[in-house]
Amino acid sequence: MIVEMKLRAPKTEVDAVVERAHSLGFEVQLNVGTDKVVVAILGGNTGRVSTDVFAVMPGVESVTRIMKPYKLASREFRPEPTVVRVRGIEIGGINPVIMAGPCSIETLEQLLETAEAVKQAGAVNLRGGAYKPRSSPFSFQGLGERGMEILSDVKRRTGMPVITEVLDPRHIEEVARVADILQVGARNMQNFVLLRELGRSGYPVVLKRGLSATIVEWLTTADYLLAEGNDQVILCERGIRTFETDTRFTLDIGAIGVVKRNSHLPVLADPSHAAGHYALVPALARGALAAGADGLMIEVHPNPVEALSDGLQSLTFSDFRRLMGELGQIAQAVGRPLATAV
Amino acid sequence: MIVEMKLRAPKTEVDAVVERAHSLGFEVQLNVGTDKVVVAILGGNTGRVSTDVFAVMPGVESVTRIMKPYKLASREFRPEPTVVRVRGIEIGGINPVIMAGPCSIETLEQLLETAEAVKQAGAVNLRGGAYKPRSSPFSFQGLGERGMEILSDVKRRTGMPVITEVLDPRHIEEVARVADILQVGARNMQNFVLLRELGRSGYPVVLKRGLSATIVEWLTTADYLLAEGNDQVILCERGIRTFETDTRFTLDIGAIGVVKRNSHLPVLADPSHAAGHYALVPALARGALAAGADGLMIEVHPNPVEALSDGLQSLTFSDFRRLMGELGQIAQAVGRPLATAV
Amino acid sequence: MIVEMKLRAPKTEVDAVVERAHSLGFEVQLNVGTDKVVVAILGGNTGRVSTDVFAVMPGVESVTRIMKPYKLASREFRPEPTVVRVRGIEIGGINPVIMAGPCSIETLEQLLETAEAVKQAGAVNLRGGAYKPRSSPFSFQGLGERGMEILSDVKRRTGMPVITEVLDPRHIEEVARVADILQVGARNMQNFVLLRELGRSGYPVVLKRGLSATIVEWLTTADYLLAEGNDQVILCERGIRTFETDTRFTLDIGAIGVVKRNSHLPVLADPSHAAGHYALVPALARGALAAGADGLMIEVHPNPVEALSDGLQSLTFSDFRRLMGELGQIAQAVGRPLATAV
Amino acid sequence: MIVEMKLRAPKTEVDAVVERAHSLGFEVQLNVGTDKVVVAILGGNTGRVSTDVFAVMPGVESVTRIMKPYKLASREFRPEPTVVRVRGIEIGGINPVIMAGPCSIETLEQLLETAEAVKQAGAVNLRGGAYKPRSSPFSFQGLGERGMEILSDVKRRTGMPVITEVLDPRHIEEVARVADILQVGARNMQNFVLLRELGRSGYPVVLKRGLSATIVEWLTTADYLLAEGNDQVILCERGIRTFETDTRFTLDIGAIGVVKRNSHLPVLADPSHAAGHYALVPALARGALAAGADGLMIEVHPNPVEALSDGLQSLTFSDFRRLMGELGQIAQAVGRPLATAV
Repeated sequence: MIVEMKLRAPKTEVDAVVERAHSLGFEVQLNVGTDKVVVAILGGNTGRVSTDVFAVMPGVESVTRIMKPYKLASREFRPEPTVVRVRGIEIGGINPVIMAGPCSIETLEQLLETAEAVKQAGAVNLRGGAYKPRSSPFSFQGLGERGMEILSDVKRRTGMPVITEVLDPRHIEEVARVADILQVGARNMQNFVLLRELGRSGYPVVLKRGLSATIVEWLTTADYLLAEGNDQVILCERGIRTFETDTRFTLDIGAIGVVKRNSHLPVLADPSHAAGHYALVPALARGALAAGADGLMIEVHPNPVEALSDGLQSLTFSDFRRLMGELGQIAQAVGRPLATAV
Repeated sequence: MIVEMKLRAPKTEVDAVVERAHSLGFEVQLNVGTDKVVVAILGGNTGRVSTDVFAVMPGVESVTRIMKPYKLASREFRPEPTVVRVRGIEIGGINPVIMAGPCSIETLEQLLETAEAVKQAGAVNLRGGAYKPRSSPFSFQGLGERGMEILSDVKRRTGMPVITEVLDPRHIEEVARVADILQVGARNMQNFVLLRELGRSGYPVVLKRGLSATIVEWLTTADYLLAEGNDQVILCERGIRTFETDTRFTLDIGAIGVVKRNSHLPVLADPSHAAGHYALVPALARGALAAGADGLMIEVHPNPVEALSDGLQSLTFSDFRRLMGELGQIAQAVGRPLATAV
Repeated sequence: MIVEMKLRAPKTEVDAVVERAHSLGFEVQLNVGTDKVVVAILGGNTGRVSTDVFAVMPGVESVTRIMKPYKLASREFRPEPTVVRVRGIEIGGINPVIMAGPCSIETLEQLLETAEAVKQAGAVNLRGGAYKPRSSPFSFQGLGERGMEILSDVKRRTGMPVITEVLDPRHIEEVARVADILQVGARNMQNFVLLRELGRSGYPVVLKRGLSATIVEWLTTADYLLAEGNDQVILCERGIRTFETDTRFTLDIGAIGVVKRNSHLPVLADPSHAAGHYALVPALARGALAAGADGLMIEVHPNPVEALSDGLQSLTFSDFRRLMGELGQIAQAVGRPLATAV
Repeated sequence: MIVEMKLRAPKTEVDAVVERAHSLGFEVQLNVGTDKVVVAILGGNTGRVSTDVFAVMPGVESVTRIMKPYKLASREFRPEPTVVRVRGIEIGGINPVIMAGPCSIETLEQLLETAEAVKQAGAVNLRGGAYKPRSSPFSFQGLGERGMEILSDVKRRTGMPVITEVLDPRHIEEVARVADILQVGARNMQNFVLLRELGRSGYPVVLKRGLSATIVEWLTTADYLLAEGNDQVILCERGIRTFETDTRFTLDIGAIGVVKRNSHLPVLADPSHAAGHYALVPALARGALAAGADGLMIEVHPNPVEALSDGLQSLTFSDFRRLMGELGQIAQAVGRPLATAV
């Protein structure tokens, strides 16, 4: 951490900063310029201390963090990439993983039909929501327990691993009885109560990036899961909130590269929520895959016009088949053929 | 809702839109231009239906919502302003309410000393956190139950009503045994599990605006509380996330005016979290009050340099006293003198 | 345009809206709901009228635009894609065009060496700046006229078409004596004085998207060029400003798909300015190409460590050769092989 | 500037960084931690060197700027506040200055009537646009020269100092023959060609903040004017672009406090463009004044319903008179009574 003192700050103020650093167990090196003193605070754990600790002191102009605030999610902590294995599928390995399915589970027929269609087209994981976080209390909130039963049934019939969202810490065990991967949605990215319990549970978790979370905040949040001993953590970029409204969110494909550089965790992309419109999903899906995503989560519905949620961003079966053909080509082109079912 | 058809969309596609609108119980009026048909979908409940329902249909170019997606929080639903009464204090009435206290409850001495200081300076409500949502799992997470005991003790000794944050739906009753107002933090604004249970609880709730929530989303979220029958709802603008980093967040004082126009709910402002630095808090506090806020939440600490969280944005007692003097003047100037303790 | 009247707005206010619409030459259709009147204002030219014209009238709650504010840049105006031909190269055709070169022209040797390297690697257009818009007046501002001479020299020696930025309307003719394409930088996207003169000039123009311009504003700005009779217009997405700072800007690859749907103009992407760091450029370049960009502008420097500007985001020759190999593969995969020099 | 080396970066890479710093004339101090070297680069001019100069070097993990990139606009450069004097009015002094008038100059009657009304209500400066930057080429572009004649006429008749926007460097002299203050609009904030010539001209300039400019960029841009020897520079916060659309822009009142801390330049606020709707203007105006703005620019029109531009955000004469009453009260409350005409 670098503490810049104010112009002509008196020695007593500099000394107080040095003393505080020492009291926290850090080494200190003074850089005395012509009219300004800069205090470098050194040690492996400075990332865990808030910059405020020094910024609040008299005579301090600014404090700059050098160690990142996340630790367990960082590549410095763990240089080799994490690979999460779910029923024979590797997430974070060489082969990108395509997960597909409807936004909401609506009926057994709807989910089963979709599962079979996406499986046939090459998806290796089924997504579908039973507990749905919806902006308005008057919108369809998902089938809940009944949805989980349908998901269990379809999982048994198709043999596909499944991923679904969990909203309530009290539902973790119920959801995990069926789901192979538990998803934390963007709006819950900083629901630390939920994260801590998922961390303790040890189940594989997809942690979606919050609408307005920086990459640093996202990785710091992943530390909540990792700190509880759960290393089955997968990240998912799903678009951030910006001033642009012609897409629902702005898919930040740059985040994929940044995560790959700074973290060992796998990172997926969700082009459906970012696009918000089926006609824009394929371009985002191709772009994210070419940019290095370890997999994609794509919304598919047998009849988007009748979907109870997110129909506008859902692909039809034929849309999805065509897209899978394109993705297969791009995956080959970047030397990472798509994962296939075991 | 206004459905714009594509240029030269065939009549069958227009008819399908009309039919779907009728099937949802809406009236329809066709606007046939020279080369484009526009379908107006009319009825008081169109705000509850997603625009996707029509946007996904063949031949549709765009769908525009006219009714707002929130209903219970709207001024159209309830024209008179809501006033929340908490132990003799009115929030949303003529007199703005100043709430102050430390970010985190640290010790009995710290909280008691702060409570007495802010009370003497004119604050009518004590804030202090026992359960703290922190970005990193390695940061101080609040004193939890022990913090609630301290809060209870200080409340008893000073007679001040208190507000504190609740993170976990399982803590609502415990927290409400002490707190007069329960706060939902910005990161939990769309934690619908928590909101629904707070709605059922009937306790007064401060709903902070999410970092990247539009005003429309914020009011729609308030509907979660109102829909469960809880009308003791207070909003709080606390700064949104933008590209600017010289302040921690960007305090959106325009939101105060928009909320006043479109909703009947009271709206506070939190200049401390927006500023992120004690030197900037007074300007934001004055600005928000002059812009029409129904009250302010301000962080105060006996010794910010030693604070366990958010010290940098905390005012000292003397800072706070000076600010209260300024706020009192502005409150008079805008014809809304500050609320005083009963 | 759709004008929503306030609840129970009196008939006189509705009549005034209708009258104003008629006075502007529009047709009107009234939609009378149970408690609200909605006025649809119809006609092909409503996009040219500000929504304010009606929003400001008494009794009006909101006004929603249906016709987009841009006209000449829209696909409705011109259904077939525009192809800009520059010395045998087609921009906007089937084959994506790779433009590469240094940020700033520094010396003849530097530019010549770079031109030869990028040409050999497959780039078909040379970029290089002589007039540089720099955030600080104390930064290197480009070589100006001397830079244009170098550019002219290198163009002659290598036979490559060249693109360079123009900042000052008084420089257009000087720049166009050398440059095959004139670039309007992001910070000048709404410099309407410059745009209007470039429109009159008829020279091919690359119009970069402003840091905070919506896609609609960008296309509306393109209308400035088109309205003056210049149809040699190429768009370029170069990253927008968001809250994320781990990349210099956020490359909005969703914008590529939106532009393709709504406009006939070709659209490039600039991964270098968006990334801000050489290590992140390849992922963005691959992603943008896979998402459907009609070409890429990439910064390359013989020795980025010594570059006078933007060295951090410049690729070395070997970086660029490796990337061109990857881009060639992806281009094949999406069925759009890279353009080759004539 | 602080250069953080990568974990275990070899000594040769550290040495290269040190050597480069020396070659640029800076002092260096090495901070050798247990597993990481941090190089502090010291000297008063490091703000003028791009961080890229070091970031691009092998073995460098990150570079952090400590000196701000602006110099002449900083308080460190000039500790006492700048006061710009325009025909007897002080901008940046104790008394906030209210500037008011129509968005566009439309007719002599319109401008004269407005000037007299705002003067009577207490405004001391008349605003009005003759050259208008408009998003669409099909919108009203201002009266140009004819508008300047009207402005000159009204100035003569009322004796008010006037401010108007200049778009084209070739118009500076023409505009300055009439205008007492020349305005650079938000969209031209980084039009460096225009800024440099305004800097040379020496005329008083209001520099509006760009829609997506950070405060640091804004102050760095002010250096363009100051570096040419023009110290008659006034800043104006007018709202930044965020995801919120219920107001036209988000007025960043926090920026007022930050500018006051970091710069010696006066700073105004423009509540009209930020609000975008007349009903929201007063709250923003009051808030900005209470937050410490040195003045306000407010749009007023005799008949907003008929305004040729920005009617929706224009106040009527009676709106403005009422607001001036409120502003006068607040100005007294904060101890800075409004400036009065000489």
